[in-house]
Amino acid sequence: MAEEDKDGLLTYLESFLTEARQARIQEILDMRTRWITLVLEDLIDPHNASACLRSAEACGLQDVHIIENRHAFQVKTGVSMGSAHWLSIHKHSHSAGPEDARPHNPFAATTRCYEDLRARGYTVLATSPHESSISLPDVPLDKPVAIVFGSEKDGISATARQEADYSLKIPMHGFTESFNISVCAAITVYDLMHRLRRSEFPWQLSADEKRDLRLQWARHSLKRSDLLERQFLKEKRYIT
Amino acid sequence: MAEEDKDGLLTYLESFLTEARQARIQEILDMRTRWITLVLEDLIDPHNASACLRSAEACGLQDVHIIENRHAFQVKTGVSMGSAHWLSIHKHSHSAGPEDARPHNPFAATTRCYEDLRARGYTVLATSPHESSISLPDVPLDKPVAIVFGSEKDGISATARQEADYSLKIPMHGFTESFNISVCAAITVYDLMHRLRRSEFPWQLSADEKRDLRLQWARHSLKRSDLLERQFLKEKRYIT
Repeated sequence: MAEEDKDGLLTYLESFLTEARQARIQEILDMRTRWITLVLEDLIDPHNASACLRSAEACGLQDVHIIENRHAFQVKTGVSMGSAHWLSIHKHSHSAGPEDARPHNPFAATTRCYEDLRARGYTVLATSPHESSISLPDVPLDKPVAIVFGSEKDGISATARQEADYSLKIPMHGFTESFNISVCAAITVYDLMHRLRRSEFPWQLSADEKRDLRLQWARHSLKRSDLLERQFLKEKRYIT
Repeated sequence: MAEEDKDGLLTYLESFLTEARQARIQEILDMRTRWITLVLEDLIDPHNASACLRSAEACGLQDVHIIENRHAFQVKTGVSMGSAHWLSIHKHSHSAGPEDARPHNPFAATTRCYEDLRARGYTVLATSPHESSISLPDVPLDKPVAIVFGSEKDGISATARQEADYSLKIPMHGFTESFNISVCAAITVYDLMHRLRRSEFPWQLSADEKRDLRLQWARHSLKRSDLLERQFLKEKRYIT
């Protein structure tokens, strides 16, 4: 589709949204970021996975990366509160197809995810309650950061730990030495986002990114947006 | 027991603890506070209740107040990770006995809890995702604060909301307009404690409070501490 027709489609779809809804979308877009991203490796419990998505979305993150070496990612709708619809979810699965040159590495999906993140300019921080090279309040935000959380049972994989730039710890001061994974993710995302919004770093989305998301969100805000979109494309003679 | 014998009992019990354990207890005591306290009103899900205790303990809170108007508080040990042993849990139940002059108020336990908190000098903040008079980053910490969280189903009661000094909101910036209750409690406690520890306010425990907790924690750190304590009391002729 030509760029001007993308704009046209957006205008067309948004004409079906109330002004209040359009204002809400704009408000959320202005607070949205890709500067911080959440990476979930092999989460087992759908409750935890869903709670992580919900916290990420509520705090203003756009991207969540899902690594599936051993466990397929499952979401519990009642817990996620539909948050997945508003996020961009990037899946990195074990079976990447015949072109993958590393079929014998059981954590190949983790390696591929990290390569993808680095290509996008992220520093990778792997959370660990035990060893740590950096504490949450000290995480530098001058470059984009990806925070990796691992399975509830075994924590992050050795691959995820070894290939990360830092290991990250939430400071704790009690006898209890770990948080539940969804609690851990929520504290981390809330704290980093709170600091980021008060910083001078260019954390906001570009105009193009905002336009693409407005289109995605307008579609999700409308019932039967596919019919409306078909109508528009017919008029523009993309389809007959 | 005379004060010097309390000290004697503590010294006696601690002589059975490793030096590493004693150092750990001292370290946790130095970071412990009653300046912030968590209040849980009628939580239904034992998973949530347990996760709240775990977060409170891990962040360094000593006191948790439990209000039971409609639901008896239940803990799931696998989730709480034994955190309840290290906390001081204050229960406020519906059935307060015949001396209670307000038997017809179904939220009498909430009212009694608030009276207790105010007598201890707390400002009471009731969390609400909807209306709010104060946002988490703006909560003043110059006086002790009690933060009230309500049931997963109905939120806090009207009594809890109306009798609070402020209603508190965690700032959110997405389509998802609420967090899970245990996530909400964890973010709140982590954020307030992080600020409190960097403040000049007198948030640390007194020497007497520390001594009493050392005794409680030494008991919980030892297997069969009751036998050791009996032995000590016999020697001091408190019992025969």
